[in-house]
Amino acid sequence: MDREIADLQTKLEDAFAAATALYRERGFQRRIGFGRKPALINVDLANAWTRPGYPFTCEGIDDRIIPATRKLIDACRENGHPVVYTTVCYQNPDPDDPRTDMGLWHYKIPIEIADQKNEDIWAIDSRIAPIDGEQVMIKKRASAFHGTYLAGYLRAAGVDTILVTGVTASACVRATVTDGLAEGFRPIAVREAIGDRIPGATEWNLFDIDAKFGDVEPVDACVAYLNSVNFRND
Amino acid sequence: MDREIADLQTKLEDAFAAATALYRERGFQRRIGFGRKPALINVDLANAWTRPGYPFTCEGIDDRIIPATRKLIDACRENGHPVVYTTVCYQNPDPDDPRTDMGLWHYKIPIEIADQKNEDIWAIDSRIAPIDGEQVMIKKRASAFHGTYLAGYLRAAGVDTILVTGVTASACVRATVTDGLAEGFRPIAVREAIGDRIPGATEWNLFDIDAKFGDVEPVDACVAYLNSVNFRND
Amino acid sequence: MDREIADLQTKLEDAFAAATALYRERGFQRRIGFGRKPALINVDLANAWTRPGYPFTCEGIDDRIIPATRKLIDACRENGHPVVYTTVCYQNPDPDDPRTDMGLWHYKIPIEIADQKNEDIWAIDSRIAPIDGEQVMIKKRASAFHGTYLAGYLRAAGVDTILVTGVTASACVRATVTDGLAEGFRPIAVREAIGDRIPGATEWNLFDIDAKFGDVEPVDACVAYLNSVNFRND
Amino acid sequence: MDREIADLQTKLEDAFAAATALYRERGFQRRIGFGRKPALINVDLANAWTRPGYPFTCEGIDDRIIPATRKLIDACRENGHPVVYTTVCYQNPDPDDPRTDMGLWHYKIPIEIADQKNEDIWAIDSRIAPIDGEQVMIKKRASAFHGTYLAGYLRAAGVDTILVTGVTASACVRATVTDGLAEGFRPIAVREAIGDRIPGATEWNLFDIDAKFGDVEPVDACVAYLNSVNFRND
Repeated sequence: MDREIADLQTKLEDAFAAATALYRERGFQRRIGFGRKPALINVDLANAWTRPGYPFTCEGIDDRIIPATRKLIDACRENGHPVVYTTVCYQNPDPDDPRTDMGLWHYKIPIEIADQKNEDIWAIDSRIAPIDGEQVMIKKRASAFHGTYLAGYLRAAGVDTILVTGVTASACVRATVTDGLAEGFRPIAVREAIGDRIPGATEWNLFDIDAKFGDVEPVDACVAYLNSVNFRND
Repeated sequence: MDREIADLQTKLEDAFAAATALYRERGFQRRIGFGRKPALINVDLANAWTRPGYPFTCEGIDDRIIPATRKLIDACRENGHPVVYTTVCYQNPDPDDPRTDMGLWHYKIPIEIADQKNEDIWAIDSRIAPIDGEQVMIKKRASAFHGTYLAGYLRAAGVDTILVTGVTASACVRATVTDGLAEGFRPIAVREAIGDRIPGATEWNLFDIDAKFGDVEPVDACVAYLNSVNFRND
Repeated sequence: MDREIADLQTKLEDAFAAATALYRERGFQRRIGFGRKPALINVDLANAWTRPGYPFTCEGIDDRIIPATRKLIDACRENGHPVVYTTVCYQNPDPDDPRTDMGLWHYKIPIEIADQKNEDIWAIDSRIAPIDGEQVMIKKRASAFHGTYLAGYLRAAGVDTILVTGVTASACVRATVTDGLAEGFRPIAVREAIGDRIPGATEWNLFDIDAKFGDVEPVDACVAYLNSVNFRND
Repeated sequence: MDREIADLQTKLEDAFAAATALYRERGFQRRIGFGRKPALINVDLANAWTRPGYPFTCEGIDDRIIPATRKLIDACRENGHPVVYTTVCYQNPDPDDPRTDMGLWHYKIPIEIADQKNEDIWAIDSRIAPIDGEQVMIKKRASAFHGTYLAGYLRAAGVDTILVTGVTASACVRATVTDGLAEGFRPIAVREAIGDRIPGATEWNLFDIDAKFGDVEPVDACVAYLNSVNFRND
């Protein structure tokens, strides 16, 4: 299995290199850059995604995503940048009840486990727990912007740049980046802080994001940026 | 004071009659009618609006709005129609913190009292308390659709008609009706179940609504309608 | 008729004075103020609303709304502030065709006249015609934000304040102000540049707006503000 | 090159098979199914994407995407189902003008070529040209839902299912499917009618879509479905 994954990665990297040649020639893969007022959006780093044993459990959480996200959170708190956490849960997770707030998503994925009454499921991972003054947004769909007050919140706060972390690359992170650009913000996907649960999905989604919707940047560059701007002094 | 209010009402009714003549001649004030699948949207019938002593406290709650809303809720429950309640509260109601989720609204009205930690403030009035399976949506702005999952929720449930109750006519109810039409639903404003806190505001807002955005209907007609369609059998 | 209108105005002013006392006591009617980067949003100042003989024709256009709007447009152009015009028209204005883009609005008002093929109907009034580089947004509903790219446009441009003009106070202007605040912008309703077609509607809608959603300001104060900030130098 | 592409496809298929095993075990990749009222959404099948020589030109247009889309359009017209086309263009495509309606997207991709004044660029491909009564929606961002009236349009028309075609799989098609589910519609991605411009991107994006957001179905099954429901008779 490990060898197969390594093999897939190699093959994908070859494909990305060929695609990059075409994209560069045609004017894609430009840099959007960091703006002047950042916020950090941590997407679905909640127990059902970050802890073992759930249908949503992802790879790379303990050794890579949580440590990288902590660095970003620390830098935000030190500099007064807004930190937003999203999670997913439902008041009515009964798939047979037409009044369910799952919409139609349970027809595709097992979201019926995310019962609002079971807070363990959807609570933000305690290793990166929110503190007083930070926002936890319960969303019902993939994008952190969809059906939430995130866009208006960020604009009212004068934010122009969103650093995005979390899971999964192939669903909620990607949808958040796509919508973030559409809503008028500069999306930065933090490479080490983003993951998925199937081999290859993080790679191909970050590739698409970097080509068209936001810059994929290493966590250290992002931390340096967060330390270089001071939100309070504006 | 009472005489002044009565006098204003008379004057407004005269103005509405004159405006109605112009509107009818020009093709406004048409009927949108009841559709085939209703949902009930109870806007901000939470303690800070329905109980005495708050900046948001409204008029006509006990004798008119709560009884009318109860009739509608009962009819919905009997027939399996979705019931949605909205309320307003903030995770960070500090007006001096740029990270507040009040956006810019506290620059206009005293929403800083709606602290999420103080559930008494924003809990739905116990006389019309939600039951299991019904939705309570926390919103940050006036419209029940803005920054919430309401539109997607209703569409996924096959709803085509929204009966709107609550307070205030001049803010959240009106914005909900306006957005409801825009999102593709037939809005029905239930006359007896809608109120405000200043004289005239309920009248002039219901007049504008009925002229352009939705039908203003008496509660008994709405109850009869709710009893005439059965959501479950679709 | 004129005497009746004057009489209604007096009565409304009395009502507004009484309401203002209550609002002030309770903390409403605060000032949101001008921000640092404005844009001008001219709502539906198109022929079917500004020229005689249409169902949508409004009052006060020639002597008040057009001159005030011109002053604002001139100040924006001199200082590089974005100017946005909205209008309304439909690709399929057949009320009997379920594929119409009128949605359900033709069930309330005579929007079937706004045929996209008849550009005279929906073209921006030539007295305030847009110039190259300015935006004309075709909308389908009341709010300039609903079903348009306005919010993302303004955020990407770094705008934090919207000056709103146009018609009608009781529909598109009011919905635009309400949504503008919700989306994170400071709405300023320019008193002389806003109108309606029925007596009283401008007054009661501006009263509600000023109490809860944005500041109503005279055109001269707005022009002075536009001249005091320079968009290009940011 | 062809051999490298074939090699990548094989490798991706292996990866998808492994991922499918995990997804099935965990309850992903469910079927959302066809609903009762479909609409067809043709995403960006406009000249700059479908004809040779543009930065946006895609692969597989002539032999696969256009013929498949024609079949779907014909079936829709025969049965009265709404057909929507999207395209992209800008009133102010000057990247140095802060008033541009490109938002921030030109910082990532070469959208500055899509000048609204040059209709050849953004006109729908004549081989699948819209006819009277069908909608052409100009969008500014990736998703057909973002900054457009599509969601309200579909809801007002009673649509519950969207068949999605067009380009590119890695941007506008995927964003449209993701938003479509979020807005309450059943998304069906029509396999033969979707493409991209880099090897692998169609495959990995359709894989992600089918796992989480909508069903990927062959064109013939979609045509059979379109013929099995009659929109007019509702």
